[in-house]
Amino acid sequence: MPYPMEGLPHQVTIYEVGPRDGLQNESAIVPVEVKAEFIHRLADAGHKVIEATSFVHPDWVPQLADAGELLARLHRKPGVRYPVLVPNLRGLDRALELQADEIAIFASATETFAAKNLNRSLESQFDMFEPVVARALDNGLKVRAYVSMCFGDPWEGPTPVKQVVAVGERLLGLGCHELSLGDTIGVGTPGHVTALIDAFRTPERLAVHFHDTYGQALSNTLAALEAGVTTVDASTGGIGGCPYAASATGNLATEDLVWMLHGLGIETGLDLGKLVSTSVWLAELLARPSPSRVVQALSKG
Amino acid sequence: MPYPMEGLPHQVTIYEVGPRDGLQNESAIVPVEVKAEFIHRLADAGHKVIEATSFVHPDWVPQLADAGELLARLHRKPGVRYPVLVPNLRGLDRALELQADEIAIFASATETFAAKNLNRSLESQFDMFEPVVARALDNGLKVRAYVSMCFGDPWEGPTPVKQVVAVGERLLGLGCHELSLGDTIGVGTPGHVTALIDAFRTPERLAVHFHDTYGQALSNTLAALEAGVTTVDASTGGIGGCPYAASATGNLATEDLVWMLHGLGIETGLDLGKLVSTSVWLAELLARPSPSRVVQALSKG
Repeated sequence: MPYPMEGLPHQVTIYEVGPRDGLQNESAIVPVEVKAEFIHRLADAGHKVIEATSFVHPDWVPQLADAGELLARLHRKPGVRYPVLVPNLRGLDRALELQADEIAIFASATETFAAKNLNRSLESQFDMFEPVVARALDNGLKVRAYVSMCFGDPWEGPTPVKQVVAVGERLLGLGCHELSLGDTIGVGTPGHVTALIDAFRTPERLAVHFHDTYGQALSNTLAALEAGVTTVDASTGGIGGCPYAASATGNLATEDLVWMLHGLGIETGLDLGKLVSTSVWLAELLARPSPSRVVQALSKG
Repeated sequence: MPYPMEGLPHQVTIYEVGPRDGLQNESAIVPVEVKAEFIHRLADAGHKVIEATSFVHPDWVPQLADAGELLARLHRKPGVRYPVLVPNLRGLDRALELQADEIAIFASATETFAAKNLNRSLESQFDMFEPVVARALDNGLKVRAYVSMCFGDPWEGPTPVKQVVAVGERLLGLGCHELSLGDTIGVGTPGHVTALIDAFRTPERLAVHFHDTYGQALSNTLAALEAGVTTVDASTGGIGGCPYAASATGNLATEDLVWMLHGLGIETGLDLGKLVSTSVWLAELLARPSPSRVVQALSKG
């Protein structure tokens, strides 16, 4: 029985990052046919957007070196989008060649993380994104932009709201259709979320991407929904994190998010039972229990 | 740097349940001197209310059979309250004898749980509470009342809001100064929290007691704060649960709550560093890691 709450949206799109952000950070080697089955299961559970893989160079992300083969194996379900992560023009060319239907690029909100993750300055990162976004748009692909470290980073402390907005508005200006605001190290709290979202002129083009490092992911999500956001990133069973940030662990688990949304009477189109059984199946393959509380609770005997 | 959020209180009282609700559900046998040190550490970290132990019969809760000895050993810090759980007149007499300064009684919001936990009906439980509360008040003790299964129970499904309000108002009518609304099996979501709190005429006399079984404890807490609640139950390191409800696990961790509150600029009077080091110390003694995400994140090397 749902209990709606005033001021919240009636429908939320969950942008599922498990196959990319999740598996990218697992030490287990997952065979390409298992990855394909994982994605097929997610589509069968009702997901409408599943980030499938990444064309970052395999030296950096060996877990996803099979990106091309995976895309070729995928049975794409009509009405489902399968974006892929793309770092540069070379990655975009591969994505185009393999008929990806949407791409995602990743930017930094802080100087230090831009240097460490992109080998660029906060300013010069846009020189890298501009031709990628332009060529993607020319080829009819939609482009999502991730912004990392929107709430703080391990070196500079809290990230000023104005600085995140400046980075985000430039990415939207390039033609990206959606910005995913990432709390890469999980330090944010609800008032910070509200302040950041309110500082953008276009909340309907924002998504949020929370990590549960300090247990704040779901309450921050609630604050984001209250501020008008309707797209939330989450990872099946809570797998994943950020490999380049020492204290970063755990994306928000899709199942924990779905429990809250369905309890609030918010439509997601998702079948929670199928999600949980997919996480149980995946946890066995990864040989570690899912960090999702809902998966733990519902998979008990 | 705090980021306040409109409509939230400036100060929150954390009612710490670790020594009672936490340890009562641990299989490890904790020596009485360790329990005393635990409570002394919590007071030193700034807690103003610490539920110390329980006078439930040791056949039911053998972990707290040393309640009398513990109270005798306690160095009570001025300004700190140390309530004890009391099931009946016999328990109250022991609490009075040992100079407890405050007691807590526990009621059920559902028929089935009243039968299982209290061996009473929903109606007849009040016959048990009435003389306990009356004698406690006569002796100058304040009485808190817990209400279990306020959001659902494992047998009857969701608990009707009206039913919880009826139980709660009767307990307040007996003279209890505070009601702690418990989501004993952790199924609640934020809209349900709002609906329940709004249905009471006296939100200032309410506390909330959330379990993290489905990962909802902190977002439910945010909803409770937005609805005007200023007292939140939590357990050091997230230890504890309810031994009589199969799927019930994990109280909200004090540290995860404090992270959110301090991030929101809400005063708690607590020193997070001292709380974390207490949880690390306790986890070693209990020989299992703390389920608190903040403790896990901050205690990494």
